[in-house]
Amino acid sequence: MRILVTNDDGIDSPGIYALAFALRRVGTVTVVAPDRQQSAVGHALTVSSPLRATPFRRNGEMFGYAINGTPADCVKLAISTLLPEKPDIVVSGINHGANTSLNVLYSGTVSAATEAMMMGYKAMAVSLTDFGWEADMSAAADYAAMLAERLPGLALPHDTVLNVNVPAIPSTNIKGIKATRLSDSVWEDVYQERFDPMERPYYWLKGTYHARGEDDSDDRALADGWVAITPIRYDLNNYAAINTLSVLNGLQP
Amino acid sequence: MRILVTNDDGIDSPGIYALAFALRRVGTVTVVAPDRQQSAVGHALTVSSPLRATPFRRNGEMFGYAINGTPADCVKLAISTLLPEKPDIVVSGINHGANTSLNVLYSGTVSAATEAMMMGYKAMAVSLTDFGWEADMSAAADYAAMLAERLPGLALPHDTVLNVNVPAIPSTNIKGIKATRLSDSVWEDVYQERFDPMERPYYWLKGTYHARGEDDSDDRALADGWVAITPIRYDLNNYAAINTLSVLNGLQP
Repeated sequence: MRILVTNDDGIDSPGIYALAFALRRVGTVTVVAPDRQQSAVGHALTVSSPLRATPFRRNGEMFGYAINGTPADCVKLAISTLLPEKPDIVVSGINHGANTSLNVLYSGTVSAATEAMMMGYKAMAVSLTDFGWEADMSAAADYAAMLAERLPGLALPHDTVLNVNVPAIPSTNIKGIKATRLSDSVWEDVYQERFDPMERPYYWLKGTYHARGEDDSDDRALADGWVAITPIRYDLNNYAAINTLSVLNGLQP
Repeated sequence: MRILVTNDDGIDSPGIYALAFALRRVGTVTVVAPDRQQSAVGHALTVSSPLRATPFRRNGEMFGYAINGTPADCVKLAISTLLPEKPDIVVSGINHGANTSLNVLYSGTVSAATEAMMMGYKAMAVSLTDFGWEADMSAAADYAAMLAERLPGLALPHDTVLNVNVPAIPSTNIKGIKATRLSDSVWEDVYQERFDPMERPYYWLKGTYHARGEDDSDDRALADGWVAITPIRYDLNNYAAINTLSVLNGLQP
């Protein structure tokens, strides 16, 4: 199995290293990832400037290609241009920090998987609920390898990606996998107003996450010690609302 | 009615000027928009650096606040911090270029409306099918004003935004509004490989859009001379697939 690996924390992050290392047990891994941190970049694409692919070494060996772009750029460029053979699956991660609930819309990690899905590939995103650079990635890597091996055989629809979140607890305390839905959790956003040395104001985002505990949700499963796997789907049509709106058909100003 | 206006082409674009001008007929308009072009930025958020809000003048009068951030940043900062009163609706546009099909995932214009929806506000995005800076925005602005006036009364679910695309044809040829779905159109992506003066390669995205002509789709309606209005929804759960995945429940590596 050929596996394309990317992420949004950058090619030098511990998370992508642990992921690539674990996935070598189940396939041939190629890493194409951003050359720097790209968190909260969402599904951004680089269209106004060119991309470069720079070989990147770790521990004395070739590790992958570093791209001066977003996670979605990495997937597009790798599959369309850089890789000599198409991958069987695309795995994005391991993200330093959870990607649950509607946070998937902001997540570069998830958007890389989404881009792969839009190009017709089976894809999954893997995240660990710990932002720390020193976090223990081993359990998340083991789950990622197990799920990657099964991904081609899962009967996931072509418009759906697998979103995996692993709790940052000792691996012996993890209860196993649980299929979940995205929770309806919300961010409470506050911009701190500060003043620069010239006394001019600037604003810095300080969000507080309010996890809602729906029984079948990803946030709840993580809190209870499960690995949450959520199928997320990109049919954005609200079909019922199309009927609602059809009362406007033919209207002109 | 208080209306917050933003976009992704930048506060100096003709599209946002035409939109703000037209919306003054139906409410009190406040403009908070990126200080530069932010196309294809998707739902990116600025979290690692601070934001500034700079008063921006057009034609000798105060027009709005220019933000050194993304469209989603503008909505978050405006509603949470800058505006003395909460808006009744949020309108994003008028984008220079269509936002149909799954392009809504890449679109900063649509993501601004999505961010507003996630914060609990009625929101819509408006785009014109012409990338030109000199395009005639008048018909799109008229439709935007008409729809903005009706937006609070439309029975749209709280997880749904209105995505409006206007064909770039003479206004007398526009047939009126049509409720549509996102088409299943696709991009064929090619990266042109070029070489810099040092003979090092770089890659530049050249996408070709293949519009699919499903009868009820936005791309088809535009081609036929209608203003396409599409309700897009952010419940990303694939509920059927959760059942499929539940066969993995309890699995451990």
